[in-house]
Parts: sequence; C-alpha cells; structure tokens
Amino acid sequence: MFRDSLQRTVDRLSGAVAGILMGLDGISVDAYTKPGEEGIDIQTIGMELAHVVGQMRKATEQLESGGLREMTLRADKLSVFIQLVNDEYFVACAVKPEASFGKARYLMRLLAPQIQAEL
Amino acid sequence: MFRDSLQRTVDRLSGAVAGILMGLDGISVDAYTKPGEEGIDIQTIGMELAHVVGQMRKATEQLESGGLREMTLRADKLSVFIQLVNDEYFVACAVKPEASFGKARYLMRLLAPQIQAEL
Repeated sequence: MFRDSLQRTVDRLSGAVAGILMGLDGISVDAYTKPGEEGIDIQTIGMELAHVVGQMRKATEQLESGGLREMTLRADKLSVFIQLVNDEYFVACAVKPEASFGKARYLMRLLAPQIQAEL
Repeated sequence: MFRDSLQRTVDRLSGAVAGILMGLDGISVDAYTKPGEEGIDIQTIGMELAHVVGQMRKATEQLESGGLREMTLRADKLSVFIQLVNDEYFVACAVKPEASFGKARYLMRLLAPQIQAEL
C-alpha cells in the first residue's frame, strides 16, 4: 500500500529515482526504486536522513520556529526532497539534477498526506 | 565586508529576517539581522545548522552523490536557505513563511560566490 503511493510519485516525476517511507528512528517502512536505478541505495540515504531530520526537528522546536515540515538537499549528482508525515515518519524522494525542483516539491507535498491517511 | 553582502541579500528579499556566514566548525564569521527582527536568534540557528550541514556533507560524499551545494528547511514559522560557500563555510538566510521561496533560493545562489570571492 505505501509502496504503491511511493511508486506513483516516483514514476510521475521525470528524473526521480527512488522514494522511501522512513521512521525517524532510522527503520524504513517501505521503499521503491525505479527499474534500472538500483545504483541509488535509498535505504542508506534514508538512514542518513533519519538522523539529520530528527536533529532538525528538535532544533526547530527549541528555536520556537514551529514544526519542521520539509527539507531539501541538493548535491552535485543527486537531490533529495523530504516531507514530514507526522511526529514519527517522513517520506523522501531522490531525484537526479535534471528533475524539476518545483514539480518534485509539489508531488512530495501531495504524497505526505496520502501516506498519513494510510498509516 | 561580509556583513554588507549578507545585508544586501536580506534587505532585497521581502520576508527575510537574518543572514549569517558560518564555519562548518560552528563558529560564525559575520551576521546581519533586519532591524525589528531581533527575536530571531540567527547565531543559535547557525550553530544548529553547522552540525547538520557538516553531517549531510559527509553523508553525500559517502553516498557518492557529489558535493553538497544547498539545503532548505521549512518549519511552520520560519524557513532557512543554506548555500555551501566552500569546504569550510556556508551562508544561511532565515525567512518568514510568506517570503518567495524561489527568490530566496535565487538570491542565496548569488550570495555564495560573492562571499567566496571575499574570503
């Protein structure tokens, strides 16, 4: 069920390679990698992100900036879009540099409430 | 000198409240807060970010995603735009939710090479 939602999002976005639903405790719930893109290790990316997202969540609360909703990371060869689903889970999508930044963010904003409804 | 560049960027963006040039070691080089926005503690934000940016930099290298260039964070009451300047420094800008996301990212992309030229 989660995998279908992740797959729909990844497949709709040109340049997207993988999506994951992850617990902030670093345990993944479900993941999808586009066929032919298995070089991208979305499980390892998810684990690295879980730690950072958890820290930023605590930091934004301490700074009275309200709840953390969204993070994006852009590296030379890969960008990652993250949406918090609730206090325990987030979804992340890895995309190649040529993907549309705006469309990726838009699709991830649609995905988070879909996943939340399924949890 | 750095402060002038930070101020120009923050003042050009409606909704921006503060900017900072920060070392990845958590020591700030220079900062600017818009008058009347002193409720935003950009020094503390910068220190929290330094830790997270440093971790994400190591993670992207380990994952062979190339160098980390850019991060954005969106919380309920504040968003933060981060651009890596080089291996040791980054610039960050805190903006209110009503600020233009696209313009903030554009201005930060202009700022990073300006700061790099001054370092």
